Amino acid sequence: MLPSGALDFFTNLIGKENVYSDKAHLIAYSYDATRERFEPNAVLFPRHEQDVSDILKYCNEHRIVLVPRGAGSGFTGGALPANGGVVLGFEKHMNKILEIDMQNMVAIVQPGVINMELQRAVEEVGLFYPPDPASQEYSTIGGNVNENAGGMRAAKYGITKDYVMAIRAVLPNGDIIKAGKRTIKDVAGYNIAGILIASEGTLAVTTEVTLKLLAKPKMTKTAMGIFPTVNEAMQAVYKTMASGVTPVAMEFLDNLSIRAVEQTYHKGLPIEAGAILITDVDGNLEEDLDFQLEQIKKVFRQNGCSDFKIAKDKQEAADLWFARRNVSQCISVYGSKKINEDITVPRSALPELLEKFDLIAKKYNINIPCFGHTGDGNVHTNVMVDGKDPEQIKIGHHAIEEVFQTTIDLGGTLSGEHGIGLSKAPYMSMAFTPEEMALFQSIKRAFDPNNILNPFKMGLH
Amino acid sequence: MLPSGALDFFTNLIGKENVYSDKAHLIAYSYDATRERFEPNAVLFPRHEQDVSDILKYCNEHRIVLVPRGAGSGFTGGALPANGGVVLGFEKHMNKILEIDMQNMVAIVQPGVINMELQRAVEEVGLFYPPDPASQEYSTIGGNVNENAGGMRAAKYGITKDYVMAIRAVLPNGDIIKAGKRTIKDVAGYNIAGILIASEGTLAVTTEVTLKLLAKPKMTKTAMGIFPTVNEAMQAVYKTMASGVTPVAMEFLDNLSIRAVEQTYHKGLPIEAGAILITDVDGNLEEDLDFQLEQIKKVFRQNGCSDFKIAKDKQEAADLWFARRNVSQCISVYGSKKINEDITVPRSALPELLEKFDLIAKKYNINIPCFGHTGDGNVHTNVMVDGKDPEQIKIGHHAIEEVFQTTIDLGGTLSGEHGIGLSKAPYMSMAFTPEEMALFQSIKRAFDPNNILNPFKMGLH
Repeated sequence: MLPSGALDFFTNLIGKENVYSDKAHLIAYSYDATRERFEPNAVLFPRHEQDVSDILKYCNEHRIVLVPRGAGSGFTGGALPANGGVVLGFEKHMNKILEIDMQNMVAIVQPGVINMELQRAVEEVGLFYPPDPASQEYSTIGGNVNENAGGMRAAKYGITKDYVMAIRAVLPNGDIIKAGKRTIKDVAGYNIAGILIASEGTLAVTTEVTLKLLAKPKMTKTAMGIFPTVNEAMQAVYKTMASGVTPVAMEFLDNLSIRAVEQTYHKGLPIEAGAILITDVDGNLEEDLDFQLEQIKKVFRQNGCSDFKIAKDKQEAADLWFARRNVSQCISVYGSKKINEDITVPRSALPELLEKFDLIAKKYNINIPCFGHTGDGNVHTNVMVDGKDPEQIKIGHHAIEEVFQTTIDLGGTLSGEHGIGLSKAPYMSMAFTPEEMALFQSIKRAFDPNNILNPFKMGLH
Repeated sequence: MLPSGALDFFTNLIGKENVYSDKAHLIAYSYDATRERFEPNAVLFPRHEQDVSDILKYCNEHRIVLVPRGAGSGFTGGALPANGGVVLGFEKHMNKILEIDMQNMVAIVQPGVINMELQRAVEEVGLFYPPDPASQEYSTIGGNVNENAGGMRAAKYGITKDYVMAIRAVLPNGDIIKAGKRTIKDVAGYNIAGILIASEGTLAVTTEVTLKLLAKPKMTKTAMGIFPTVNEAMQAVYKTMASGVTPVAMEFLDNLSIRAVEQTYHKGLPIEAGAILITDVDGNLEEDLDFQLEQIKKVFRQNGCSDFKIAKDKQEAADLWFARRNVSQCISVYGSKKINEDITVPRSALPELLEKFDLIAKKYNINIPCFGHTGDGNVHTNVMVDGKDPEQIKIGHHAIEEVFQTTIDLGGTLSGEHGIGLSKAPYMSMAFTPEEMALFQSIKRAFDPNNILNPFKMGLH
């Protein structure tokens, strides 16, 4: 419950149209993509940065928990008010592209801007914002920055942190700070933007982001390789990258994933294949793209690729991408409950990782279809169980623990893209030492001594 | 002075051959490239990470100040023991390339590895480590990471922070932590590596760095453009970058810099030119390089370039680069004392910046030759005065203050590469608000509650 007077304060500050406290709205803001539900006590829509500052200052003084929220599309509960309090939404007012600076190739945006809206706006003027999380049609830049979102193009272009040049933010005490500059080089003061990225809204509330843009490559080509075994495909992935070619994307589907798509859509996919790899290359010259595809084909063939297709036009490219784009929902054929993780390992560990996941699936007699961003070692690992059977759910969680342990043993991380939030908080102690957790805790306290900002996420207390 | 027993503790721990406390060595470790001098009480050479941990733990318990030192090549006093204490050196033991992982295109190195040694080692196997600070022949990766070193190739390839995937470090209390992974994606926990980069050795002691490598581009070409005015050259810089071409380097010399080199070396440089731009492009295909050079030539010509030369071979490329490579020492023709800064602005502000620097020079009747990395907005700004005349030195410092204010007014930063250290600490309040300084201070305390690690640098207390 909010302290008495809090709703009045918020209403006086930002107007009653920007304060939701009715049941219907509180329910609407109680969930994210995890399907967990926690109702906030109120949802506030600040009109500008000064509102954010005033709200935080009040909440800090009155020890009111505050949770910043992007589109609520997160997979780990990062934006859920698991401890009550107020949710801050940016979709009503703080959702503008403030500037596309062509001269310096930079965009300045508010946190509520939708990723794809930014991509489209900059592409219209010949520029390019590469980070493309699967949620790109609805997730916001504020959320992307706070979760350090990745995507399919990370193999060549990196992830959100590689594009954040500066962040304006409000600290829990209401102080407004600017971190970074519209410059490639800036080494004055601590790299505050660096620590805010991926902090899951636990350190400060982002109010403005300055993003680096690239020139839009003039052309893209798509190819697909079919492999008899997943092991050979995984060998091909890291050997391609190490050969000197950097494809934009290098995505894979394992046999279970291929079968799930074929069963759903009947596209004539190779259901006997151990895996398929789908890859995009881009550049400004036809010769350059052909050079890259030749190199990829060579490495694929050396690693058992039985069929290599290059798309002749956009339609053929879309056909090659169809299975990858649609796999996520298709794998429900293997169970009504999907426990999906986004673990990531060094690319060279992919063959062993996939072999071990196969053993875990056999041990528990379940299916673990895998697909995802192998070009950067990021595997979407889906432990499928019967959601109505508590015993199956228990088995699923045992399997997930083994998935995490295997990943960590191979030098990988609990999360490549989705963050820790609530869902993975119980596993933090597998990945971090008590000393590392203590450091996280000190940093949290340095920013937020009263623990009002999205508290208890990421395994912090 | 060290507390009694400290030297014995260090000697017992790491052996007397790894503890220097004689006057000659203390003098040798008392300076860096600033020419300021502060003698440490001892210099310690840890053999491995556990030594670093034991030393820090002891220093923390006994409140002994500790300053980690790379090659002592810094320009801002970051490695100087301005408050006494012990200096930690890595050049005797912790100076190994531990691994070049070809499969994942990653290098793992100890802090004492020299930048160029790493570049050469990875290039031998076809890989590429782009950050190339001017100090590359002697500066260390530990120093590069702690200062977030840049270099000439930043315009295309970014700076040190863009290559750091993981850092092992020891906290002031002796805790050993690992931050990051050998993966492109990792969003579990706070981005500790992000805040350690550029922290100038004030938060933790780096013991191991995991660096991203690229495939070595197969070829490079060099070109030079001559411009009647510096303004036209600066217009050409940002318009080239915005046109969709990203040269590896885009370096400039202004008229004073050109004249200084010509006066020293008599190379037939265009002494009437307002500025020259020297640019490298790279790639894997001849056609691609030619495409890039055509584009650069077009934009240069549109912006007043009177002469555009493409080097036909390595010798011609070296000739075109000669002036830029040698300018730094030549400008001493303008005064015995050089107050050199490495301010950086958004590229589009370069024309106005250079115009305003010219006005500052006229106002104080001094020379301010400028050259540097215009491709990323980083201008080496040299206020030249007579070092024997106290009045001139005073004038120089007034001019520098105006240089900083102009830079900040144009959205730039006090330092693109060199850091703050001691030299620029007095100017921090020009660039940061009290709220931002308070945040830096909180972060410092979170890592180092007893303020033993390189204290009082960066304007912190």
